[in-house]
Amino acid sequence: MDVTFKVIELVGTSTDSYQAAIDSAIERATKTLKGLEFFEVVEHRGHIRGGQLVHQVKLHVGFKIEDITG
Amino acid sequence: MDVTFKVIELVGTSTDSYQAAIDSAIERATKTLKGLEFFEVVEHRGHIRGGQLVHQVKLHVGFKIEDITG
Amino acid sequence: MDVTFKVIELVGTSTDSYQAAIDSAIERATKTLKGLEFFEVVEHRGHIRGGQLVHQVKLHVGFKIEDITG
Amino acid sequence: MDVTFKVIELVGTSTDSYQAAIDSAIERATKTLKGLEFFEVVEHRGHIRGGQLVHQVKLHVGFKIEDITG
Amino acid sequence: MDVTFKVIELVGTSTDSYQAAIDSAIERATKTLKGLEFFEVVEHRGHIRGGQLVHQVKLHVGFKIEDITG
Amino acid sequence: MDVTFKVIELVGTSTDSYQAAIDSAIERATKTLKGLEFFEVVEHRGHIRGGQLVHQVKLHVGFKIEDITG
Amino acid sequence: MDVTFKVIELVGTSTDSYQAAIDSAIERATKTLKGLEFFEVVEHRGHIRGGQLVHQVKLHVGFKIEDITG
Amino acid sequence: MDVTFKVIELVGTSTDSYQAAIDSAIERATKTLKGLEFFEVVEHRGHIRGGQLVHQVKLHVGFKIEDITG
Amino acid sequence: MDVTFKVIELVGTSTDSYQAAIDSAIERATKTLKGLEFFEVVEHRGHIRGGQLVHQVKLHVGFKIEDITG
Amino acid sequence: MDVTFKVIELVGTSTDSYQAAIDSAIERATKTLKGLEFFEVVEHRGHIRGGQLVHQVKLHVGFKIEDITG
Amino acid sequence: MDVTFKVIELVGTSTDSYQAAIDSAIERATKTLKGLEFFEVVEHRGHIRGGQLVHQVKLHVGFKIEDITG
Amino acid sequence: MDVTFKVIELVGTSTDSYQAAIDSAIERATKTLKGLEFFEVVEHRGHIRGGQLVHQVKLHVGFKIEDITG
Repeated sequence: MDVTFKVIELVGTSTDSYQAAIDSAIERATKTLKGLEFFEVVEHRGHIRGGQLVHQVKLHVGFKIEDITG
Repeated sequence: MDVTFKVIELVGTSTDSYQAAIDSAIERATKTLKGLEFFEVVEHRGHIRGGQLVHQVKLHVGFKIEDITG
Repeated sequence: MDVTFKVIELVGTSTDSYQAAIDSAIERATKTLKGLEFFEVVEHRGHIRGGQLVHQVKLHVGFKIEDITG
Repeated sequence: MDVTFKVIELVGTSTDSYQAAIDSAIERATKTLKGLEFFEVVEHRGHIRGGQLVHQVKLHVGFKIEDITG
Repeated sequence: MDVTFKVIELVGTSTDSYQAAIDSAIERATKTLKGLEFFEVVEHRGHIRGGQLVHQVKLHVGFKIEDITG
Repeated sequence: MDVTFKVIELVGTSTDSYQAAIDSAIERATKTLKGLEFFEVVEHRGHIRGGQLVHQVKLHVGFKIEDITG
Repeated sequence: MDVTFKVIELVGTSTDSYQAAIDSAIERATKTLKGLEFFEVVEHRGHIRGGQLVHQVKLHVGFKIEDITG
Repeated sequence: MDVTFKVIELVGTSTDSYQAAIDSAIERATKTLKGLEFFEVVEHRGHIRGGQLVHQVKLHVGFKIEDITG
Repeated sequence: MDVTFKVIELVGTSTDSYQAAIDSAIERATKTLKGLEFFEVVEHRGHIRGGQLVHQVKLHVGFKIEDITG
Repeated sequence: MDVTFKVIELVGTSTDSYQAAIDSAIERATKTLKGLEFFEVVEHRGHIRGGQLVHQVKLHVGFKIEDITG
Repeated sequence: MDVTFKVIELVGTSTDSYQAAIDSAIERATKTLKGLEFFEVVEHRGHIRGGQLVHQVKLHVGFKIEDITG
Repeated sequence: MDVTFKVIELVGTSTDSYQAAIDSAIERATKTLKGLEFFEVVEHRGHIRGGQLVHQVKLHVGFKIEDITG
């Protein structure tokens, strides 16, 4: 039977790097979501606080679903 | 009173066709979501396995809501 | 610890104006979602019924999360 | 039978506001076009004359048609 | 002499499929417009009514013109 | 009173150059349309016939209108 | 002689509305920049603080220049 | 070891349908290219000849490579 | 040491051609800016005055900087 | 039988003009590629060397193929 | 009183990495610009010199302003 | 004489990071392609396998050519 995925949008943050912001969001997602299959980065922006960067990386994360909830 | 819609992103799949992938995702959504009103196709991609296509169609699906949940 | 945000897509509507459609969606979101932090308008379209406009404004709304749900 | 819509592009203008530029274009369109059904804003730009803004809002406006003319 | 084309925007609809919505709009256009030469699909969206899809496919359709009318 | 513009899409062609394709379309438009005010180039493509280019330049052309026709 | 414009990017803010954020940025620009001629809105986003919106509207603002400075 | 993919752009054509144009291009690609893994549709346009559509579907097709050639 | 570039946006104008509008803006920029390195065209639009085109070409122009000024 | 096209990306360069950069790339392509049918300009950028422009025009060029090679 | 931001475009470079190119541009900006608040990455490209990458990362950087200068 | 570049699309992969996926694809390209000059990142997506990310970075890579091959 054909599977269906749901895609949600997350913003991971890190004061270290682009890479750490991605890893942070995915790590948190894997704790509570089953069936994670793919991701896509759609935006890299952030804040500057006292000369330090706070990276904000927007991700689309997809996972298999049986019952679709809103 | 003015209504509010929530829009979620789904990826329907099918080994048959673009059309079947859309129908499959909408059919599954209608089983559990009330108040479905509109959809939009935003991407058509897929995998090729042994010369056969697995269509993956990304859809935005909108439905009326009373209480917004995350 | 680095925070994570979830972003959902809403469509606010109003027969009055663009501004009222935005306010309406955000007002409803603040009733049930905690930790709302940012929004972005991504589309302004609508219907015309008997010469009157029904504004539909699509918004992305972000809020802090601890546990990510689908 | 399946209906067909034609979509035309208009630019409404106003020295007052974004909202007034939209209303002005739609009001004029409803005078001569039958079957108006939907609109979409695609651009908000304008001129600055002596410190005052002249808003120019580009709209796509759709209406049902029987016979398509160029 | 160099030719000029005019391009108009149509939305074909169908309760059957993406393909039928395209065919329906082009068939209607060929009845009244001479010199049709090319088309491009720019959007596939639609409504959901009682679980059934109403496909709305936005097309750009180009045809040769001698005298340009607004 | 606030003015309204209509914008139409034309494709000018030329075997000479990008510039000639634009000039050709505008020249033809000025013969039959009153109140031409602005243009925008949205695409430069073309055909290659026996090693020679046929430039096709898609233009949006705007003009003032009193009565909006479809 | 052909004129040259420089375009700068501003973000106007307002707790009132989209329109007020635009007006605020343009008003401030007209105090110090001569030869302002045109603007374009490129983004409408914002923050939510205690249920209240802080609108942030990104504008491109163009003005005539004689000598280009970085 | 980390794999590398090359992605090429093809345009499949068909007088039948969108779906047939895709299948036609992929079928031809599978004859001569090894390691095909994924595809993405990026454009659906076409010609109209005597009222009949010639569908042209632009696809990106990816396959594993060992040695990259230009 | 790694260099940094600043990029500014200019609009060159010409009643002659697209090419002349670009040349005009770059010529003016080279008079006052040191270290010009690259450019990119991002828009070609214009006005029509009495049947004559006034080309407006928007350019991004980059140059090396030591001290970044706003 | 339905034909298939392959599309490749080229960057033509010229110290003269936008037009010359396009002509240069197409002329070179026609020397070695058979069945060239269409092109599309997707980017116009360049370098500035001693006040002189080096135009770089990115083109997509399509040609009929029998056997698809990577 | 509502604040206004100015946004400028910088290109940071590094032979090390994407991350280092960003850090380099922001570090230089913080030396001379006060009130830096946010950034956004809009492009990651670069040169290849003798097999080595020179990363060029285009950033938009925003800062509070009192008096807007061109 | 004016040079011509060909641009090909590659997808580098890595289980480590965004940066490693880029380096991996460029390293492989430099083994077999002469005259590599520039690259651009156009997409960062990937798979999630057992909680681990497989980064897929799509790159455009350009190199000088004498004879254009398909």
